[in-house]
Amino acid sequence: MMPGHRLTLSKRAASMPASPIRRLAPLAEAARKAGRTVYALNIGQPDIATPQVILDRLRAYHDGCVPYGPSQGLPEFIEALRTYYSGLGLALDAGQIFVTTGGSEAIQFALGAICDPGDQVIVFEPFYTNYNGFAAMTGVVPVPVPARAEDGYHLPGRKEIEAKVGPRTRAILICSPGNPTGTVYTDAEIETLAAICRERGLYLIADEVYREFVYDGRKHRSVLTLPGLEQQVVVVDSVSKRYSLCGARVGNIVSRNRALMDALLRFGQARLCPPTLGQFACTALTEVPAGYIPGVIAEYQRRRDVVHEALAGVPGMVARKPEGAFYSCARLPVDDANAFAEFMLRDFQLDGETVAVAPLDGFYATPGLGKDEVRIAYVIEEPKLRRAMRVIIAALAAYPGRVPAAARG
Amino acid sequence: MMPGHRLTLSKRAASMPASPIRRLAPLAEAARKAGRTVYALNIGQPDIATPQVILDRLRAYHDGCVPYGPSQGLPEFIEALRTYYSGLGLALDAGQIFVTTGGSEAIQFALGAICDPGDQVIVFEPFYTNYNGFAAMTGVVPVPVPARAEDGYHLPGRKEIEAKVGPRTRAILICSPGNPTGTVYTDAEIETLAAICRERGLYLIADEVYREFVYDGRKHRSVLTLPGLEQQVVVVDSVSKRYSLCGARVGNIVSRNRALMDALLRFGQARLCPPTLGQFACTALTEVPAGYIPGVIAEYQRRRDVVHEALAGVPGMVARKPEGAFYSCARLPVDDANAFAEFMLRDFQLDGETVAVAPLDGFYATPGLGKDEVRIAYVIEEPKLRRAMRVIIAALAAYPGRVPAAARG
Repeated sequence: MMPGHRLTLSKRAASMPASPIRRLAPLAEAARKAGRTVYALNIGQPDIATPQVILDRLRAYHDGCVPYGPSQGLPEFIEALRTYYSGLGLALDAGQIFVTTGGSEAIQFALGAICDPGDQVIVFEPFYTNYNGFAAMTGVVPVPVPARAEDGYHLPGRKEIEAKVGPRTRAILICSPGNPTGTVYTDAEIETLAAICRERGLYLIADEVYREFVYDGRKHRSVLTLPGLEQQVVVVDSVSKRYSLCGARVGNIVSRNRALMDALLRFGQARLCPPTLGQFACTALTEVPAGYIPGVIAEYQRRRDVVHEALAGVPGMVARKPEGAFYSCARLPVDDANAFAEFMLRDFQLDGETVAVAPLDGFYATPGLGKDEVRIAYVIEEPKLRRAMRVIIAALAAYPGRVPAAARG
Repeated sequence: MMPGHRLTLSKRAASMPASPIRRLAPLAEAARKAGRTVYALNIGQPDIATPQVILDRLRAYHDGCVPYGPSQGLPEFIEALRTYYSGLGLALDAGQIFVTTGGSEAIQFALGAICDPGDQVIVFEPFYTNYNGFAAMTGVVPVPVPARAEDGYHLPGRKEIEAKVGPRTRAILICSPGNPTGTVYTDAEIETLAAICRERGLYLIADEVYREFVYDGRKHRSVLTLPGLEQQVVVVDSVSKRYSLCGARVGNIVSRNRALMDALLRFGQARLCPPTLGQFACTALTEVPAGYIPGVIAEYQRRRDVVHEALAGVPGMVARKPEGAFYSCARLPVDDANAFAEFMLRDFQLDGETVAVAPLDGFYATPGLGKDEVRIAYVIEEPKLRRAMRVIIAALAAYPGRVPAAARG
């Protein structure tokens, strides 16, 4: 063989980050194998039961094979989504909905249709870590604008945001209710973003997959309601969190921009179609009982309270009460949140139990930020969640790299 | 609003081709709405029944929700795949199998892990049209080496192939049994490709999703059997065609290159996981009766004969007998295969029936090639297939752009 200099992988592969959510999976696996119970608060994997009508529909699958569907999604599922949006006061045509393989593909397609390699997208950090992965895959450059834990991760002022708009800026990408922050942007914040996008000719890409999960009587403002921004707004959506269907890999994009929808169709044709089985099951979503979503919201709000009350009692901890989604971000009194997360899985147990959390540095684009922060997903039932929080607090006390409260800035 | 110069889409979106397989879907839909029967020979959507054990497994889905699985695939499904490969004489570790969202994602991930934007991959044209789409999405440049209809689309000589290897060449990408050609590369051809890859330090990416479908007693040679090429071989696979599960979106990559598998895992983590429901159903593939695949092969071979006999009788037609897969490529005596395909859907019927085929120009990278060629997928049952072939032949006689046999080169 000639010098195997070509037998490397791509720079893209080298730059592709490991998921901070899933990176600790082998340690969690080892802890489980060693007989410990591991509460998985690292991944946004809801445990709440999927509506029975959806599972029943799946089990009634009657075709003799599982054929490709249309690249833009099954018409029956698109109709079900139209009914769902209509219930939110959003009137949409079938041609304004494009079904994707989960919210993941929706983000990737939206970025790919709007940006070329080297183009920039403004994000507010901490942001959903996989935006980094999609950016690496599409060559898009995330330009972070820091949001502060002390402000509950709400947006900085308009000038701070506009200072980041440059000649290669193509879009602002938001997630509200926020993953990982649990922050719900106010009407005023959404309108500020809209004004910037309107004036600077940017797309506003909004990941709204947690839209139902807002607490304490808050209301979620969809960017689809923004007047005069119809051509610039792109909504990323998914049934994953709403109905505990993460593994179905069924998401969608909403846009009123016909050229964009046409590009999505061509992207979609290359991968043929989104999963037929998940879409088929979700044709039943119009029959989900009216009480289902309010019940889920009440459950998550109770869990949010359990997490918040536990964290609030720890000296040196910074953790605002989340307003939505099912995540809490916390600044821990530790030297290194990665080391602490590994410590919990490898070296710690309380009555045979331990916890997996997601270190937050991978949710930042600015190097050095998030080193002492973690994301906690409250996706297990209350009694277990209480035990998990006890484990975290005991682990903090036992962790050798604990930083005294007085030593922190 | 400021000058909306930014409100364009990306060059990537502009360069993304419409699928020649799905481009004619609106015309076919219109024909159906007008009451005509349309035989869909344009898309490789098998009609053969999925093994009952797989559908039964799906209907027995018992979880209360549909959770994310591991990014590399469900362990139970990976085990089932190991058993499947073992039956082919291929001993694989679980860590050498990475489950993807269909063969589509497998190709995209393989290209993404090996190539940076601007890197080149050698393909033999006509090739699976969606390679163009994946290339546009990943910025990879397909470098075509023409294969000729008159040679049954077998490989050109080694020198012709090597002449295309340049400093940015990273891989050779093949599909055998071939989509769209139906060509099955011989042992000698596979070994020639292996020798080139070995000597020039290239990856050999082989799309083997049709491996079972070889006719007239031929044997398929998997690139996984090539000695000394373990680090360079990447196999793209899928359950879609084998078990008529196209809509399940379950494929996989096989590679013995650990660095590559590690990169795939990081790519996979960004999109979380492949579809859980399709994988769950496919855990039953070890229980598929032994007679299932031979029965499918026999059925496709009979259909292949129906198509070939029909085409062989048309003056001015060039159509070799396909050796595998379920496609036939044909050079038609027409001025423009796209116009002819549209003519069949828009302007033609025989006893209320017409046919959709895939024009072949979109399966070439060299401009101008394939203008008079089509791909016919024999994925409907024999009596219908006979009628569809009658339609095509009658349409050729009625088509205004027919080229007299004597006028062709």
